[in-house]
This record gives sequence, C-alpha cells and structure tokens, in this order.
Amino acid sequence: MEKQTMLYEGKAKQVYSCEDPNYVVIHYKDDATAGNGAKKAQFANKGPLNAAISTIIFEYLIENGVPTHFVEQVNERDVVCEKVEIILLEVIIRNIATGSLTRNLGIAEGIKLTPPVVEICYKNDDYGDPLINTSHAIALGLATKEQLTILYTQIRRINELLIARFEKADVTLVDFKIEFGINTKGEIVLADEISPDTCRFWDAKTGNKLDKDRFRQDLGDVMDAYEEIHKRLLATQ
Amino acid sequence: MEKQTMLYEGKAKQVYSCEDPNYVVIHYKDDATAGNGAKKAQFANKGPLNAAISTIIFEYLIENGVPTHFVEQVNERDVVCEKVEIILLEVIIRNIATGSLTRNLGIAEGIKLTPPVVEICYKNDDYGDPLINTSHAIALGLATKEQLTILYTQIRRINELLIARFEKADVTLVDFKIEFGINTKGEIVLADEISPDTCRFWDAKTGNKLDKDRFRQDLGDVMDAYEEIHKRLLATQ
Repeated sequence: MEKQTMLYEGKAKQVYSCEDPNYVVIHYKDDATAGNGAKKAQFANKGPLNAAISTIIFEYLIENGVPTHFVEQVNERDVVCEKVEIILLEVIIRNIATGSLTRNLGIAEGIKLTPPVVEICYKNDDYGDPLINTSHAIALGLATKEQLTILYTQIRRINELLIARFEKADVTLVDFKIEFGINTKGEIVLADEISPDTCRFWDAKTGNKLDKDRFRQDLGDVMDAYEEIHKRLLATQ
Repeated sequence: MEKQTMLYEGKAKQVYSCEDPNYVVIHYKDDATAGNGAKKAQFANKGPLNAAISTIIFEYLIENGVPTHFVEQVNERDVVCEKVEIILLEVIIRNIATGSLTRNLGIAEGIKLTPPVVEICYKNDDYGDPLINTSHAIALGLATKEQLTILYTQIRRINELLIARFEKADVTLVDFKIEFGINTKGEIVLADEISPDTCRFWDAKTGNKLDKDRFRQDLGDVMDAYEEIHKRLLATQ
C-alpha cells in the first residue's frame, strides 16, 4: 500500500493514509526525544532499527494471540497497520524498580516488583503526560471502566510473553510502555511500537542498558545498543 | 483519660499515650500549614473548632455504622481515640473538580464528577505526598490489595453520608482527604480528623469557600469560615 496524505506527525514516527481507509502506513523517523521533547537528537538508522525490532515483537505477539494493529512491514521504515483511534493513555508495566519509581517514590533501584507495577499516564504533552489512576481516566473520558480492565489484562499478558521472548535473547525486560487503539471494527488492539524507545532492556549478564536510557542519561553508544537488541532477536527467532 | 507521653507530633495535632495502651489522646493545635509545610501560620481557636467539628462528624459516622478510631471528646482540644497504626495513605474523594485535578489534568474547575474520583497519595513528606495507584501501594508495602478494596469502599460510603449531612447544613462537600488505621484488635478504622483542614466546603448558595483554601489562597477570614461550618453543623443536629 502506498503512502498518501500525512495524517499525524509524532516525535519519532509519521502516520500516512493509504488507499484503504481501514489502514495506515506508519513511517519510522531517525528522531529521538526525551523529557517530553526537552532533549532532541537524530540517530542515523534508528528508524529502520525500531521498525525491524517492533515488527519482530508484534509478529511474535500476534502468533501468541494478542490483538494488535500490525499488518506488515513494507520497507525498512514503513509498516502497514490497521487504522485506529488511539486511546490517550500510556499503559506502563514495571518488573524492576528504576526511573520514576525510584525518583518519585523512593523504591530502591533494581528491586524486583512482584507482582509487576502497572501505571497509566494521560497522553497530553501540555500536562507532561501525568500519572493518573483508573478513576481519573474515567472522569477524563479517556476510557470506560470495562476498557481499562481490558488494557490492564492485556498489558499483564503481553508482559509475560515479552519477558519470555527477551530471556531467550539474554535480555532482562525491566519495564515498558504501550498504547492501545480502537480499530474500525471497534476492537481494542495493541498499537504504536515496541522498541528500545519504549522499553527498558538490560543485558541479562552484565546489566548494561540497551535502550533509550543511553540517550536520556548521555551514556553514549545509543545505536550500538539498538543494533544489539535487533541482532539478538534475529539470532533467537 | 489523662495525657501521658507525647508519641507523635504532626503539623496540626499531637498524639499522647494514656493509661490504657489501647487508647491515645489526640490534642488539636492552632497551627495551620499548606503546601507540604511550606506555608505556616497560627489561628487562635482553630484547634478547638476542628476538635468540635471532627467530633460531630465522627459521632454521625459511627451512628451510621462506619468503624472509626473515635471514642470521646474530653475537653475543647483533646479527643480520646483508639490507638491505631496509621496506614501511610491519604485517601481522597472528589465530587467536584478543583485544585490539583484542574491544575494537573486540565479538568474544568467546578465540573461535577460522576462517579466521584478516588485517589490515594503516599503519606511521605520527603517525596511530597505523591499521587500513587493501587499497584504502587502494594509494591511499597503500604497495604494489601484486600485492605485497599476496604479503603475504597469505605471512602465511597463515608462520602455519601457526608454529602447528605453537609447538604442539611447548606454546604456542598467538594472533596476531602481521610486516613485509616489498624487498631489493636486488627480492625481497619477511619482515623485522623474530618474538618475544614481536610475537606473542601463551599457554601451551597453563594459558593463561598468555607475551608483551608481560604488560608492556602490568602482569601482572609479563615476562622470565620471554620466557625460558620461549626455553627451550621450545630444548628442542624
């Protein structure tokens, strides 16, 4: 399917219409941002790496029965997906404490979280994507109670599947953020991407960070980390 | 029961041991603080007013079957209560959007929230009493899932009772914060106080603020508002 009009431009991707109104083409850019856009950079080949990693992950989740928007990767930066209306929530799950859990709540860095911590944030740049709870999401009209129950159930299931998949690649899945959308059939499906931009990956042996924290924390070798994740996923397919 | 050793001093109250180890005496001070202690003042007669208002409210809740720590008021500043281990959560319910809902999430000031929004904050001054969710509370070891379900059920019930009680006094109950504790019998009971320090009250006719927002927002006539709440509660008993 050919890209037609750009419908939306995000920080790291563009979304284009195509002939069939039930589908879109998602185009992966090389841009990286952190801190709600306060920090910006470009990394050559980031778009193709994230498109490739996300494709491997979405195909794996689909094989395991997870409903997603993904259809097929058509070239190194372009992925055809079902057209969805994005639910304006970042849904987050945390297996190990780091980042905001440590900074905002004083939970010790590196502590295993059993059961995992699940969070939702309101996708709204004007308010800095704030942490909210179920009752806020309902009051804001972002989702119904029944839809939120589906999101919480889905992210726990996806987490179990991804922990197992990344273990095979000697990678510890620390936490990740996903988004959901409602497709033209009215079904809630996993949307957006799953990549080192949206997950925290630690090397299972060395603890080295293999994700966007290398950019956030100025650790260098950002693309080496993304390439390593891609290489290990390919080697364990 | 006579006050013995001071066990704890909070921003607006002191807690003393007494002869019977199952009870404490809570002493109401005249201090007022806002913004996590950033703003401080003293208001003559605030302690006795809050002790009196809280006593009327706790006696009303007990009559309606709500388990609380309250035993009896023994003088104008001192209230005997069951000794409890406080659960380190501020449990909040909001019937009308104002304050942090408007500031942090952009919900329009004055909008009625149906159903009411329920929040929990981690009682920890070092981290500024941050908003958390059920899964954080469990990870922090603050309460079990079953205990949290009891707190959420209790605050909704207390809210219904208080809305009705304050309607009788021509006062709109906008929102309030409560705390729970576990008594020496292992029961979860409503603890702390319920007063213009911990609730937002608007005059049902004029919309005038009759609570600590007068202090937070430098509106003046702070004690006049507290006296008005006390007077109206007495007049409608």
